Amino acid sequence: MRAESESLLKVGERLDDLERNGYRIIQSRERFCFGMDAVLLSGFVQMKAGACVLDLGTGTGIIPILLEAKTEGRHFTGLEIQEESADMARRSVRLNGLEDKIDIVNGDIKDASTLFGASSFDVVTTNPPYMVGRHGLTNADEAKTIARHEVLCTLEDVISQAARLLKPGGHFFMVHRPFRLVEIFCLMHQYRMEPKRMRMVHPFVNREPNMVLIEGLRGGNARLSVEKPLIVFKEKGIYTEEITELYGY
Amino acid sequence: MRAESESLLKVGERLDDLERNGYRIIQSRERFCFGMDAVLLSGFVQMKAGACVLDLGTGTGIIPILLEAKTEGRHFTGLEIQEESADMARRSVRLNGLEDKIDIVNGDIKDASTLFGASSFDVVTTNPPYMVGRHGLTNADEAKTIARHEVLCTLEDVISQAARLLKPGGHFFMVHRPFRLVEIFCLMHQYRMEPKRMRMVHPFVNREPNMVLIEGLRGGNARLSVEKPLIVFKEKGIYTEEITELYGY
Repeated sequence: MRAESESLLKVGERLDDLERNGYRIIQSRERFCFGMDAVLLSGFVQMKAGACVLDLGTGTGIIPILLEAKTEGRHFTGLEIQEESADMARRSVRLNGLEDKIDIVNGDIKDASTLFGASSFDVVTTNPPYMVGRHGLTNADEAKTIARHEVLCTLEDVISQAARLLKPGGHFFMVHRPFRLVEIFCLMHQYRMEPKRMRMVHPFVNREPNMVLIEGLRGGNARLSVEKPLIVFKEKGIYTEEITELYGY
Repeated sequence: MRAESESLLKVGERLDDLERNGYRIIQSRERFCFGMDAVLLSGFVQMKAGACVLDLGTGTGIIPILLEAKTEGRHFTGLEIQEESADMARRSVRLNGLEDKIDIVNGDIKDASTLFGASSFDVVTTNPPYMVGRHGLTNADEAKTIARHEVLCTLEDVISQAARLLKPGGHFFMVHRPFRLVEIFCLMHQYRMEPKRMRMVHPFVNREPNMVLIEGLRGGNARLSVEKPLIVFKEKGIYTEEITELYGY
């Protein structure tokens, strides 16, 4: 088993335990390692048994793999524009024996509704690049830049494609940064994927939020439910019970 | 002094101490008594010395009176559509000797930019009706209904008028309910009064917010700063230090 796992690894890659169903994931420091964002998003997502799910900009495939473990969704597709990341995600899927449940597709978010067809998913998830254009850009490395900055797709691309890809009544789940909240709400409203649920994530109870979790409903009416704050640390270096549970430690 | 104060009161009215500068306010249970919303808004507002301020739908005049005490604004105008409320607010202004600093005008928010002229204020504040139309209406009393429900003006009336009334670079401050947040952001963005600062108000740290404080900037660019949560009670019946300070107890 160990030998088989390692034959799936390329140079510079490592295997990380996901503490769920014994699942592991292949990551590489040179590219992009998943952060708390993906874990929090996987805990925020709700879906009915049998749902058909698409993750836009899936990177290492962390979100489909976590959602396969945590939900009763029937099938998960991860779309990733970077061939090397998509390859890494595909090997993680194989490593966990999930080839029947998860497909990784190498392609562009901007073409997603053409690739998969309009109104073809019950749920769309995304942990998209947060930064506008090349603003504040410090990553010389192109792979990380593409994952973090809107160089290959904009927030509007992500939201407009998600709206097209969802069936009427389908649900959209996104993690993003609070400073983009006005754009997020205006675009979701414009593309008729109404924000229905929001939760702010604060590192400490007395600190501003650094992430926001948002659920939208394709064709929903205007009425937002704002949830209690999600606090990450109860004191320096010590997670709150809620975070500990999300990570499955 | 006591005799003079009481001569300003009509039947069914009472005098409440504001714990600021010795100011008091005339209120009536039959109409509308100010709530924590107005106090929190007065603590959220920031302005430069000498600012010219308008409060849309001022009711008893609580916001201009508190802002006169708490800020270095030069002049405050309160606009109120209900003649009896405007009269009560005017008597409170007189009672506190603030006739030179505060004007109460009886008129309709929908006519505000005609009444006062476009681009004529540095700051616009408002604690508008929260409820859509007559949804969930239980107040048989017309005065309270007008204060709480959008029967005489809509959220769009308030936001579009505020945008017209503000000078370019002027600031808008509003308290509202979180469930309307998407509409609020979309309308503010549409009328080019960009949301720049937001703070959620939670009754307890582990409860969903029941109020939201929002600052907009006339002609501003998209970038929202979300502040740490404002928590009202540390335990049942006991205010947090921040709330105690805001009330001035």
